Amino acid sequence: MQSLLDTIAAPATPPGVSALAVIRISGADAVNVVNTCFSKDLSDAGGYTMHYGHVRDGEQVVDEVIVSVFRSPHSYTGEDSVEISGHGSPYITGRILHTLLKNGCRTAEPGEFTLRAFLNKKLDLTQAEAVADMIHSQSEAGLQMALHQMRGGFRDDIAGLRQELIDFAALIELENDFGEEDVEFANRDRLRSLVDLLLTRIEKLRESFVAGNAMKHGIRTVIVGKPNAGKSTLLNALLKEERAIVSDIAGTTRDTIEELFTLDGVLFRLIDTAGLRESSDAIEQIGVDRAKASMRDADLIIYLFDAETTNSAQLVHEVSQLPEVAYQLVVANKTDLTPDATFGEEVIPIQAKSGNIMSLLTALKKIAGSYEFGSETIVNNARHADALRQSSDSLQRVLHGLDSGLSSDLVALDIRQSLHFLGLITGEVTTDDLLDSIFTRFCIGK
Amino acid sequence: MQSLLDTIAAPATPPGVSALAVIRISGADAVNVVNTCFSKDLSDAGGYTMHYGHVRDGEQVVDEVIVSVFRSPHSYTGEDSVEISGHGSPYITGRILHTLLKNGCRTAEPGEFTLRAFLNKKLDLTQAEAVADMIHSQSEAGLQMALHQMRGGFRDDIAGLRQELIDFAALIELENDFGEEDVEFANRDRLRSLVDLLLTRIEKLRESFVAGNAMKHGIRTVIVGKPNAGKSTLLNALLKEERAIVSDIAGTTRDTIEELFTLDGVLFRLIDTAGLRESSDAIEQIGVDRAKASMRDADLIIYLFDAETTNSAQLVHEVSQLPEVAYQLVVANKTDLTPDATFGEEVIPIQAKSGNIMSLLTALKKIAGSYEFGSETIVNNARHADALRQSSDSLQRVLHGLDSGLSSDLVALDIRQSLHFLGLITGEVTTDDLLDSIFTRFCIGK
Repeated sequence: MQSLLDTIAAPATPPGVSALAVIRISGADAVNVVNTCFSKDLSDAGGYTMHYGHVRDGEQVVDEVIVSVFRSPHSYTGEDSVEISGHGSPYITGRILHTLLKNGCRTAEPGEFTLRAFLNKKLDLTQAEAVADMIHSQSEAGLQMALHQMRGGFRDDIAGLRQELIDFAALIELENDFGEEDVEFANRDRLRSLVDLLLTRIEKLRESFVAGNAMKHGIRTVIVGKPNAGKSTLLNALLKEERAIVSDIAGTTRDTIEELFTLDGVLFRLIDTAGLRESSDAIEQIGVDRAKASMRDADLIIYLFDAETTNSAQLVHEVSQLPEVAYQLVVANKTDLTPDATFGEEVIPIQAKSGNIMSLLTALKKIAGSYEFGSETIVNNARHADALRQSSDSLQRVLHGLDSGLSSDLVALDIRQSLHFLGLITGEVTTDDLLDSIFTRFCIGK
Repeated sequence: MQSLLDTIAAPATPPGVSALAVIRISGADAVNVVNTCFSKDLSDAGGYTMHYGHVRDGEQVVDEVIVSVFRSPHSYTGEDSVEISGHGSPYITGRILHTLLKNGCRTAEPGEFTLRAFLNKKLDLTQAEAVADMIHSQSEAGLQMALHQMRGGFRDDIAGLRQELIDFAALIELENDFGEEDVEFANRDRLRSLVDLLLTRIEKLRESFVAGNAMKHGIRTVIVGKPNAGKSTLLNALLKEERAIVSDIAGTTRDTIEELFTLDGVLFRLIDTAGLRESSDAIEQIGVDRAKASMRDADLIIYLFDAETTNSAQLVHEVSQLPEVAYQLVVANKTDLTPDATFGEEVIPIQAKSGNIMSLLTALKKIAGSYEFGSETIVNNARHADALRQSSDSLQRVLHGLDSGLSSDLVALDIRQSLHFLGLITGEVTTDDLLDSIFTRFCIGK
């Protein structure tokens, strides 16, 4: 990592021809660097002020721009910062950036603006991660979850847990200072009930990770059924829904296609396993294996069958073969052709071909409702889930230590470890590797 | 076209995940519309002020943003305007825009912000067109030409021509008012010399169009030569130059590939006709025809030959077959294999395979120098060139009228026509069709 004392610059808007492009500069020298190439003197410019003028490279005018000045600590990074808003031309943006780089700053690394905001205590780590989540949000639920986290919801929860534990750790360590005197400042019963309470809260947070992950990346939905059940027709009918936001994204394997759509602000990620069964025998087996793996990883399995060619006994057998996942919907297609067939109340009747899938949409919306973001804290980050697990393990050892009358210095050690893992979440404890792995995933300019 | 009294909104930055995205709002209600969904009251916010807060859709927070307020007439459009700078997520940008549209504004049409700037006399037409040219600029020469035009260089030239002519037209029309009295307020000799002067200036501007067009779109360069002369190798060597900015763009026909590179800030557009000869006979002829057409349209032909297999007599014959264009370079390849061969001083020796093309680059830079933008006005817009031609035609008729003793009312008519065409350039005279054809080519948000 390069020096954090440098003044840095980077484009903050995507490349492309457009009305505006914004370049961000941050660091102690931000105003000086811009001053070397701007037509007005910004030395005395206050924070939150805008200035119209030209960017010059030597004698040559490069662009007419509006420059916004932010003064430390009232900026995104906490440092002096400047934003140059110019014409939206990649060529001009490159020229302005080039001029800035000649005049005393360097290109920002990915995420470096937000890293600086973290190091200057403008954000904790969960908030910094929420910035990345906001930028990548694809649904209302995902956005609201990220906003809650960015506004400190998660940090406050974790900080609360941590503070109570720190107070106890201090008391126990005081006992150690008294050595052989066998005093007990920290009431063991109160410690035990505190740890129990913490474990309950951590468990609740950990449990929310499954839902949080689905809310962030989309509810993993697999449609399964026999070849002629009408899976593709249903897929198309779902994606044609007016409220659907659809996009094709490359799946993790070449054989899987994923489609996204939202219902009531909740993102569904449709895993299409249709292509998996259309090959030679050896491939077929791999395909079937993958389809099974997809099903096991799903949050929702939609089992589709042809009402005309399936009887109740077959249906019961086939559904019993499905893996257990959070949600399962059994859907009868082509029910217009078999008005008399009955499969039980839990079976959802549709006619995919004519686009009549209202009853399925109602069921999907009910599931979406259970993923709507309220105001409670939800864990949606694997790093946080992992740190919570490790913190929980340490607390279990604290309980075990108390039960077995372990000496206070060893109990204190486990408490410290639990604190360490909670601190990793918010960034009160960090390592360079941790910061690297978080911030290098950001885009340049953020 | 929708009402220009509406308040309009549009994203001003390209779609894509990035640090920032900017949404622009303009119109009499701009501040009111933003007020309906912003966490602070902007009613009394002055121009050139920034405000940190949240955008809300009803109860729901949508984003944390910085809002910049511009007050009429000190804004791009001349109207009250607001820019919302939020997180660079297409989802969030869509949500903010949706919220604004619910609260009293409509989506801007392409170019509508700049159209309003024109109608509010913040820009004339040549300046508005220069905004589009700036955004699309791909080289220093193109950018400088657009900047000159945006800063009023072309308008001032045309306005100067026009004003002198207007003064004369007024005098001549005064004569008409006196009807039969046979007075002569407008000195015919002075009118004649003015028209001569104007024609000279207009001719000079019209002549600059060839260079202006090449500077804007790139110097059309065609490399020709026999199949084994090393055209592809040379192409690659040119594109590998350190200072080269390279991109593939689709040509006008499927068979032509164009590559861009800049030398000393001047854009070259390499038309690759290599693919044209690799087909069956019937296609071959079409290919050859197209290659010939490409050559005729070129600004520069680079004729490449194999020094090993070509003798002077052949060379003279082949070069004599080339069409006349602005610049021609005759280049001997593989001169390392034939150190003793001589082809005359005007032949440029290179070894494309080893990347030794310095002498060709020197020649190209000399040509680039002739296209560098100084400070004189250069016409680079076909619309302007066409209006200049029509204005010139009218002035020729004025001269003819003066020569043949035409009555002053008819001479006045031709002067008025010439004024009309000059006025079309700057927008003093406009039609809806003209405005449509100019502004619909802009991107949304500009």
